[in-house]
Amino acid sequence: MNKKFTTMRTLVTLLLCLPILASAQTNQDSISIKKLADEIMTNGKAYDLLRELTKNIGGRLAGSPQQQNAAIWGKRNLEAMQPDQVFMQPCKTPSWQRGGKDFAAIVSVNGKAQNEPLAALALGNSLGSNGLVEAELLAVANFDELEKRKDEVKGKIVYYHSVFNPTRIQTFTAYGESGMYRGAGASRAAKYGAVGVMIHSLSTAPDNEPHTGGMRYDESLPKIPAVALGPNDAKALWEAAKTSKMRVQIQTYGFFLPDADENNVVAELKGSQFPEEIITIGGHLDSWDVNEGAHDDGAGIVQTMEILRAMKASNYVPKRTIRFVLFANEENGGKGGAKYAELAKLNNEKHIFALESDAGGFTPRSIGISCSPAQFKKFQTWTSLLKPYGTEITAGGGGADIGPLKSVVKDIVLSGLIPDSQRYFDLHHAKTDVFENVNKRELLLGAVNMAAIVYLIDQYGVNP
Amino acid sequence: MNKKFTTMRTLVTLLLCLPILASAQTNQDSISIKKLADEIMTNGKAYDLLRELTKNIGGRLAGSPQQQNAAIWGKRNLEAMQPDQVFMQPCKTPSWQRGGKDFAAIVSVNGKAQNEPLAALALGNSLGSNGLVEAELLAVANFDELEKRKDEVKGKIVYYHSVFNPTRIQTFTAYGESGMYRGAGASRAAKYGAVGVMIHSLSTAPDNEPHTGGMRYDESLPKIPAVALGPNDAKALWEAAKTSKMRVQIQTYGFFLPDADENNVVAELKGSQFPEEIITIGGHLDSWDVNEGAHDDGAGIVQTMEILRAMKASNYVPKRTIRFVLFANEENGGKGGAKYAELAKLNNEKHIFALESDAGGFTPRSIGISCSPAQFKKFQTWTSLLKPYGTEITAGGGGADIGPLKSVVKDIVLSGLIPDSQRYFDLHHAKTDVFENVNKRELLLGAVNMAAIVYLIDQYGVNP
Repeated sequence: MNKKFTTMRTLVTLLLCLPILASAQTNQDSISIKKLADEIMTNGKAYDLLRELTKNIGGRLAGSPQQQNAAIWGKRNLEAMQPDQVFMQPCKTPSWQRGGKDFAAIVSVNGKAQNEPLAALALGNSLGSNGLVEAELLAVANFDELEKRKDEVKGKIVYYHSVFNPTRIQTFTAYGESGMYRGAGASRAAKYGAVGVMIHSLSTAPDNEPHTGGMRYDESLPKIPAVALGPNDAKALWEAAKTSKMRVQIQTYGFFLPDADENNVVAELKGSQFPEEIITIGGHLDSWDVNEGAHDDGAGIVQTMEILRAMKASNYVPKRTIRFVLFANEENGGKGGAKYAELAKLNNEKHIFALESDAGGFTPRSIGISCSPAQFKKFQTWTSLLKPYGTEITAGGGGADIGPLKSVVKDIVLSGLIPDSQRYFDLHHAKTDVFENVNKRELLLGAVNMAAIVYLIDQYGVNP
Repeated sequence: MNKKFTTMRTLVTLLLCLPILASAQTNQDSISIKKLADEIMTNGKAYDLLRELTKNIGGRLAGSPQQQNAAIWGKRNLEAMQPDQVFMQPCKTPSWQRGGKDFAAIVSVNGKAQNEPLAALALGNSLGSNGLVEAELLAVANFDELEKRKDEVKGKIVYYHSVFNPTRIQTFTAYGESGMYRGAGASRAAKYGAVGVMIHSLSTAPDNEPHTGGMRYDESLPKIPAVALGPNDAKALWEAAKTSKMRVQIQTYGFFLPDADENNVVAELKGSQFPEEIITIGGHLDSWDVNEGAHDDGAGIVQTMEILRAMKASNYVPKRTIRFVLFANEENGGKGGAKYAELAKLNNEKHIFALESDAGGFTPRSIGISCSPAQFKKFQTWTSLLKPYGTEITAGGGGADIGPLKSVVKDIVLSGLIPDSQRYFDLHHAKTDVFENVNKRELLLGAVNMAAIVYLIDQYGVNP
């Protein structure tokens, strides 16, 4: 047997074995993932933790005592899971206060007095009306109509018919389309002299619950009050305004206290082979004040904690360092994620991957990943490992809390759990976002899929 | 230019055009499906119809006045949608009566008297206990343990720990595994002299609601009473029985009235090109008595009606005949589907495709189809047309109502809507299966995907 032949034979044998080796590896990964999945589905504590967070602590707006309590609760529970360390990252957050019970009403229709209260919530970050604001209503379909009718705006209260487009099967698409009225509607109307703004709540629900959420003022323009109306009231107002002249009232009480001292809560499992490579999993602790923040983002918080619990319970020793982060502030400021990124830069940390869950605790549909085409190709080879748990790898993912990492670690891979979106905007930022509307299996299944992708990244890194 | 060249050029042109033609067709299908989808998501009446069915009529066990009312309600509403015809198919159904408030309790633990009532529901089709049955408890994990301990069974009440396996991501798998204890548990235990049977409810819910559902007696054995226990009570009983001798009581009241006169309600759109080829869409009108039958199977009923409404509203003229069927009886007898198949045979009807929705009104995940490999290949070419609405074509599908068609029309293609299954067994056959637990968008999206596959079958038939 000559050398050349031997070499060739070795090569051929090696080539023949490659699929078997790959398949054996896939099989081992499948077993490892199933071990984590079974642990989560059988002994998962995420649902019980969510009950504690929502029922014992409740709504957790940044700067509130509840948010302080939530961080302490998070730290205590993470410590009980015995990671290698738990630490706090102090950060300053805004402290917006609703200040009172928001009010809106129709007071006359075609000159005839009415007393028709409207279900309303002041938008987050909006300032109080300084007493009752009463004015004629100008109802517009969108910003285009506002621009066309800008000469009619002065002295009026503007209503935007920012209704969700029901034909968007991915509800986040409709949220993106209608969301700009919540964010910019007040200042766009104030520019032409409006004295107040009402929007159709960013809601898909067949009910009349108003939905709050963040807005922002253009600092160069008057800061007029802004409220979201319950969907049924908003639709009735819109219909009536087509044929009638109406006068409406708004009274709100929003104001800011000095910035608050909050904390990101971080638990860490130290990597056994590549401790300097950091994988982050997280959600945000804060919520709006009007609900329990069960889906937004209690779900992301307890899923994050669940993965740590399951890894410890399964005696999983990660190759890379895994961080479990309860971000302090996302809703009205994004200060938690900004602080995490700032410290990552300051400490020259090597972040390779971050995964956020902030789209509700519903049945997971995919793991959305933002990365290079070569990386995406690598991640897609894991498709068959995720499929038994109901997800696939799709292009594009991240989240508001992990987003800032991208600006300090250029080649970090960002990722987001993408749950089924049909029910999210029924309750997002409304008082109906409560524990009772979270399903235990759906919540746990989200954690399972997050654990699976984190396991794979931990085993194989992000390099193609 | 010689002839051969011309022919070749024609051929090449044709070949080059094929993908374009196919693509143009796909594009037209995409537009047609979107038209139906937009109509359903924007103007859908399924949710309002479900409110009427569940709130105005309520639980609809075959033989009950409510079931009679439901058929009349269904006929009236289908007629209002102006199909080519609406007709009834009379059929006899069982008329099982619960007869009273089922009772179960622990009365002693290790000889010490207790008075611990257990949340319990008699299983459907089970006969009453003729007074209070009290006996020692024998708790077994499964039939294997029952067989091993058969000498201990005589005179006892047997409890089966038929708990759902939480690691089954497809919950119907766990239902299949545990379901046999509900169906056959009583007679299996009666064979060895048991005087009553209790099972762990076939439930995934973190609550204590008992779930009823059909059972069947072996006619050659004593017909002993059988109840399902609430999950929390069942688990507590199971734990206590590991270390303690317990005595328990059962009292149930089930009996049968003479068979009832019910009706399948059928609406029909006549095919414009192939009227003899019949496509069936359906769900079942009946439900258990303890709930509103909202997911099981109010959802399937109103989705079926919604597709007719949307087709009419979109001026869709089908090529083939489409039947919209509200089956009279599935839960405790399957007499509706049997009658439909019997008449199909009698009338020598050419049924090519049937689609059932009977797995809840949750977000649809796939269209499951039972067919030949060549047909499956054809159907899979439609994948990109379904994907925007969240589903894919998967192998294996059908349902209890359309199943009997297979025995009279050998080459019929059977299909089922497969919704996300995480929440179904939280409320299936329990009193929690009510309107409030159905989500409007999820329900409508099921109808959208059903409409899409029916449109494609109508356009292209089932032949490869």
